[in-house]
Amino acid sequence: MTMNTQDTICAIATAPGGAIGTIRVSGHEAINITDKIFNAINNGKKLSERKPYTLAFGHIINANNEIVDEVLISLFHGPHSYTGENSVEISCHGSSYILQQVMQLLIQNGCRAALAGEFTQRAFLNGKMDLSQAEAVADLIASTSAATHRIAMNQMRGGFSKELTFLREKLLHLTSLMELELDFSDHEDLEFADRSELKETALEIEKNISSLVNSFSIGNAIKNGIPVAIVGETNAGKSTLLNALLNEEKAIVSDIHGTTRDVIEDTISIEGVTFRFIDTAGIRETDDKIENLGIERSFQKLDQAEIVLWVIDLAEAESQYEKLSQQIITHCSEKPLILVLNKADQSTETIRISNELASKSSYSTLVISAKNKQGIEQLQKLLLDIANLPDINENNLIVTNLRHYEALSRAKESIIRVLEGMEVNLPGDLVSQDLRECLFHLAEIVGGEITTDEVLGNIFKHFCVGK
Amino acid sequence: MTMNTQDTICAIATAPGGAIGTIRVSGHEAINITDKIFNAINNGKKLSERKPYTLAFGHIINANNEIVDEVLISLFHGPHSYTGENSVEISCHGSSYILQQVMQLLIQNGCRAALAGEFTQRAFLNGKMDLSQAEAVADLIASTSAATHRIAMNQMRGGFSKELTFLREKLLHLTSLMELELDFSDHEDLEFADRSELKETALEIEKNISSLVNSFSIGNAIKNGIPVAIVGETNAGKSTLLNALLNEEKAIVSDIHGTTRDVIEDTISIEGVTFRFIDTAGIRETDDKIENLGIERSFQKLDQAEIVLWVIDLAEAESQYEKLSQQIITHCSEKPLILVLNKADQSTETIRISNELASKSSYSTLVISAKNKQGIEQLQKLLLDIANLPDINENNLIVTNLRHYEALSRAKESIIRVLEGMEVNLPGDLVSQDLRECLFHLAEIVGGEITTDEVLGNIFKHFCVGK
Repeated sequence: MTMNTQDTICAIATAPGGAIGTIRVSGHEAINITDKIFNAINNGKKLSERKPYTLAFGHIINANNEIVDEVLISLFHGPHSYTGENSVEISCHGSSYILQQVMQLLIQNGCRAALAGEFTQRAFLNGKMDLSQAEAVADLIASTSAATHRIAMNQMRGGFSKELTFLREKLLHLTSLMELELDFSDHEDLEFADRSELKETALEIEKNISSLVNSFSIGNAIKNGIPVAIVGETNAGKSTLLNALLNEEKAIVSDIHGTTRDVIEDTISIEGVTFRFIDTAGIRETDDKIENLGIERSFQKLDQAEIVLWVIDLAEAESQYEKLSQQIITHCSEKPLILVLNKADQSTETIRISNELASKSSYSTLVISAKNKQGIEQLQKLLLDIANLPDINENNLIVTNLRHYEALSRAKESIIRVLEGMEVNLPGDLVSQDLRECLFHLAEIVGGEITTDEVLGNIFKHFCVGK
Repeated sequence: MTMNTQDTICAIATAPGGAIGTIRVSGHEAINITDKIFNAINNGKKLSERKPYTLAFGHIINANNEIVDEVLISLFHGPHSYTGENSVEISCHGSSYILQQVMQLLIQNGCRAALAGEFTQRAFLNGKMDLSQAEAVADLIASTSAATHRIAMNQMRGGFSKELTFLREKLLHLTSLMELELDFSDHEDLEFADRSELKETALEIEKNISSLVNSFSIGNAIKNGIPVAIVGETNAGKSTLLNALLNEEKAIVSDIHGTTRDVIEDTISIEGVTFRFIDTAGIRETDDKIENLGIERSFQKLDQAEIVLWVIDLAEAESQYEKLSQQIITHCSEKPLILVLNKADQSTETIRISNELASKSSYSTLVISAKNKQGIEQLQKLLLDIANLPDINENNLIVTNLRHYEALSRAKESIIRVLEGMEVNLPGDLVSQDLRECLFHLAEIVGGEITTDEVLGNIFKHFCVGK
């Protein structure tokens, strides 16, 4: 399916429930269609007779000449608009009834209701921004912290695109040298660029791409939160701990063993760093099929976590530690693991037990009472220390988008093949093929002729309507 | 407390979660303050150097010179703005994080966060609209149907104000004639207006005011829905009927007698007419204190309803009718009452029972099965027939606001006293006092010098922030 970009689209661009609601209209007929339902107050001029970048005050009128609303209209002439097309923004009173009425009138007069992200998609198709910038628009709208905001803003303003352009130019230069060598390989009298110099350039490109690929773990942590799994035996107080961390009542807490069957995820922000907590079913031997499924998922979640909190009931600390230590430590491998010794409020031997476990394992131990919210702040500080995310400034290039990460990973594979080929003095045409593949994968990120409608569809369907 | 209208206010005027978020700024310094955090793109002009009713594209910049957002700014010069003051609207990306950052910057640079309704309050204080028009702005935003929308739009555009002005002019004329008579009462040679003519004018005014007072029952029904009480014995299927009418599962339905203890209200729209259904606790003799409270409330709700549905279980129809008919009919007095004979799916004698009850009472009977949703459409049609609301067109004057209704009712009392005074030939100064009271109450509606801060506070606290 090829996008129809010839028609004029409209959408409500604000969330329902505010004082103001804005409807966007974009396309060749945007101004003419709006003129059909608009009567200016004070100044009888049609929108089509007005200058762009001006505001018009007036009434939206229905087919019976009834006033639907008093509105302010912002006027844009293509290409000097967000989409690059003629555009109109209608600022209405924020009543869903009114906004729906205006939408209906626009549609009756020739507009089509826009799909999710269709305004930004048009901006991309009309060359107002590349694909990575378009994706940053959605990230910017979704940004909830200084870090996600800075990364999205930098990407939207072309910081990432500039780096990719720089890499592609280097690659193109390298490719043309390789292909020149290829074309004139019969002419032994011609002198070519030194292969070792070419290798150096390729190595530099590989370094840059790898650095972007590696930034994704930070980017992903910033965007989606650092995954922290909470594991332990049933009734050790995992849900209570999660509630204490979240400071609200999300998980069901009860005294019956095995209450938490579904994996519940929630995020909190500790000093601007987002942690995504994964509460898991308690681990114990059981005949309950559904619960066994939950326990299986607990161990899977352990594999996905970057930090693991193992909650141990102080009253049964030694036996719980013996029973699960091998399983949990195996699953954690190199991951930071914190032994959280819970129910300090019920224990009289906290110091002895804590010291004993600390001596048995090489992991951090922390004594808390999840119920009384004791030790929670220390735990948060420990998490922050382990996360150790860099400060994000405006100039950081950090990949946060899975699609970009995948394209960069493939580009990295290609450039590594280039390096390997050069190492063994492969013929230029074979090396050049890998160089072209590397170029292709980088081009996928910014998009262009090579971008398929399927890729576009996948990207823009996650946008909100009206953007 | 006197409102401070000297400072510059700002507020987010859109609901969180959309593609676009708009921040409004209004006050003497609105443009200068925004200039401090705004860098124009393409055209370096400051906002203060630009013409009103134009759009500026650029960046909002924080104290570290970081870009907070790419925005579009709409510029207004007082008095040609909504509030009558210098105003700016900043159209941002719809991220709560970004909107909060921009709000913080505005506040750091001298703005104050606006209170609910403060923009409209300033519009009133600056003479851009009267109080009834200001109140219509909130009604317009809350409008959910063609009828509520038309009434609010007419009121906002001054339809109601015009009628009040017309009435006040008549009253003023009448008052001046009465007071003229008073001033020159010694001069027997002066001829005054014929008292019978004055009486006729007063009568006309009384008729107009009464008609507005009477319109409130329709206005209230349109705005809040026509209250319909559902009563009957426990387990007759009242909650199931409510669910069938609402087409969703709001009330808890179970087979245990007396499940519904709280009065649940919900509205549905039948062909554009809103009905507010009141589900009540089942009526039966019980020792349960809480349930007895519920039953008491059921009868209270009966008094508030305009239409009553009495749900009767067909299987026990005759005994239920005998037991409750006197109580219910007493409480309904003149109200339309419908006997809803439920559980047709379980009864084999529906026709005989229905005929029998219909012959016993003078009320409509309807056989339904709430469980199988049989007869629900007929019930809806019956409700619509009973409601019999007039079509609302643009020119209808219908009072929907309780404050207006109360002021009009007091104005009506005053004008009736005027008429009574004239009837018994009271001296002009006494009649004139009632005339002035009538004028005062009408003036309360449109507001002005006489409006206290307390009245203003009560009106605008119900607005949303940003309006």
